[in-house]
Amino acid sequence: MPSQFSMTRRVAFSETDLAGIVHFANFYRYMEDAEHAFYRSLGFSVHPVESKIGWPRVKASCDFRLPLRFEEEFEVELLIEEVRSKAVRYRFHIWKTAPRALAAVGEMVVVCVNLSAGKMHAIAIPDSWKAHLQPASADMLETLK
Amino acid sequence: MPSQFSMTRRVAFSETDLAGIVHFANFYRYMEDAEHAFYRSLGFSVHPVESKIGWPRVKASCDFRLPLRFEEEFEVELLIEEVRSKAVRYRFHIWKTAPRALAAVGEMVVVCVNLSAGKMHAIAIPDSWKAHLQPASADMLETLK
Amino acid sequence: MPSQFSMTRRVAFSETDLAGIVHFANFYRYMEDAEHAFYRSLGFSVHPVESKIGWPRVKASCDFRLPLRFEEEFEVELLIEEVRSKAVRYRFHIWKTAPRALAAVGEMVVVCVNLSAGKMHAIAIPDSWKAHLQPASADMLETLK
Amino acid sequence: MPSQFSMTRRVAFSETDLAGIVHFANFYRYMEDAEHAFYRSLGFSVHPVESKIGWPRVKASCDFRLPLRFEEEFEVELLIEEVRSKAVRYRFHIWKTAPRALAAVGEMVVVCVNLSAGKMHAIAIPDSWKAHLQPASADMLETLK
Repeated sequence: MPSQFSMTRRVAFSETDLAGIVHFANFYRYMEDAEHAFYRSLGFSVHPVESKIGWPRVKASCDFRLPLRFEEEFEVELLIEEVRSKAVRYRFHIWKTAPRALAAVGEMVVVCVNLSAGKMHAIAIPDSWKAHLQPASADMLETLK
Repeated sequence: MPSQFSMTRRVAFSETDLAGIVHFANFYRYMEDAEHAFYRSLGFSVHPVESKIGWPRVKASCDFRLPLRFEEEFEVELLIEEVRSKAVRYRFHIWKTAPRALAAVGEMVVVCVNLSAGKMHAIAIPDSWKAHLQPASADMLETLK
Repeated sequence: MPSQFSMTRRVAFSETDLAGIVHFANFYRYMEDAEHAFYRSLGFSVHPVESKIGWPRVKASCDFRLPLRFEEEFEVELLIEEVRSKAVRYRFHIWKTAPRALAAVGEMVVVCVNLSAGKMHAIAIPDSWKAHLQPASADMLETLK
Repeated sequence: MPSQFSMTRRVAFSETDLAGIVHFANFYRYMEDAEHAFYRSLGFSVHPVESKIGWPRVKASCDFRLPLRFEEEFEVELLIEEVRSKAVRYRFHIWKTAPRALAAVGEMVVVCVNLSAGKMHAIAIPDSWKAHLQPASADMLETLK
């Protein structure tokens, strides 16, 4: 079954800018927060010091469809788009919850790295993690592209 | 002549994360800061209240090549990739300055909107701005893609 | 009965710095988030545009006792320290939740202002708000000073 | 001669909030940036990993007098208020530059810690640093309190 995760929260005052909407750079933080909450929901920590495994981002993009405003509730939906031996591509849909409307569509590619030797070098994603990374169907991914 | 602008600054402590490098979401702020400095260098303000013109982002992406570290100096180079009637696509190259190395390549599409009516609606880019938005050559853009 | 409110959340990755702990400037955002959640719990919005009332900060301070780390859960407890005609002084205790330990003690003074005229000018706190701002006892406030 | 340092920069768009002014939590980042630039001007790095010395904040406060707005230029002036064996108390004055007006007055107490053993423990400030930390006169400090 495809992996799927969603996190709901509310826009904080400090996340808005003088245009009265969430500053666009914060959408990337929302996506990362959902990714981390997804791993915590599986019992994994993404703390790079404790796990000796890091997930640096190699690419992140976002299409902004509708602005989010202060105090507005939104949902960040995470899907797995592709799993490669050392990398994962996520898809994120950010929804306004009331009324439900698509605010943004994002993608992020992260690489699995070993951190124990001081420097980062890419490694194969551990099987224990990989088992939980089931790509969504093409249908699920296409609908909102 | 193609428009070109560059801004040099240093990584602030608060921009790093526990992995010891600049948190990736800050690269999008660096790109926006360079865009705004570019317009200031032309004598334009991008203040949405005073100019009644806003430039919301509709898409932003970034490829991360090398991490930036605390106190490191970097240059954000802005090029114009494409000018449409109501939108501009920028290219950004973020360089470590010593030794010079490409840290990130970004793109951002912004739309010109009128803000005077309370709601945003897309308008044609004013000619006074457009005159300063000269796309870079395909060569300049391809080199680093 | 003294007003009291508390909000529990988890440290986000982007809130840490290269020392591996929450960057100190984020504690002020945590305090403001708790203040806003407190007002929402009472049915009030603190949206300055919609309510025509703003609450600019005139002073904020924080004593840092213990660092907060990535993924750690913490509680922000809000107490009312003093209510003046046009201003409120809050006290905040930020607790690590497991094991419970005091991470920070903060204070914030906010002033009630009218925003309808373009410029801010201080006004008396509306009675409908004031009724909910009951100062904590000296005992509650002294314990942790 | 009393130590004195000042840094001038401009408000970034992402530092504003929906009230149209710099979000208050950013003033603490401005103060820290000035502190770090002060040490760099002396030839010291405050990078905690390379220097094995860290300067965690134990207290930070700020009085907000006038709002800073997008694109506005401001100066952060750093003075030494007190030097103790293991701690330094800074005073910061944040000035709008045109026309010159005091926007904020801050204080910050930082403790010198050794980081080599994994855990932080307070140590005496190295003499090479201390030589550069000359407190301002009572007059300079009182004027703007």
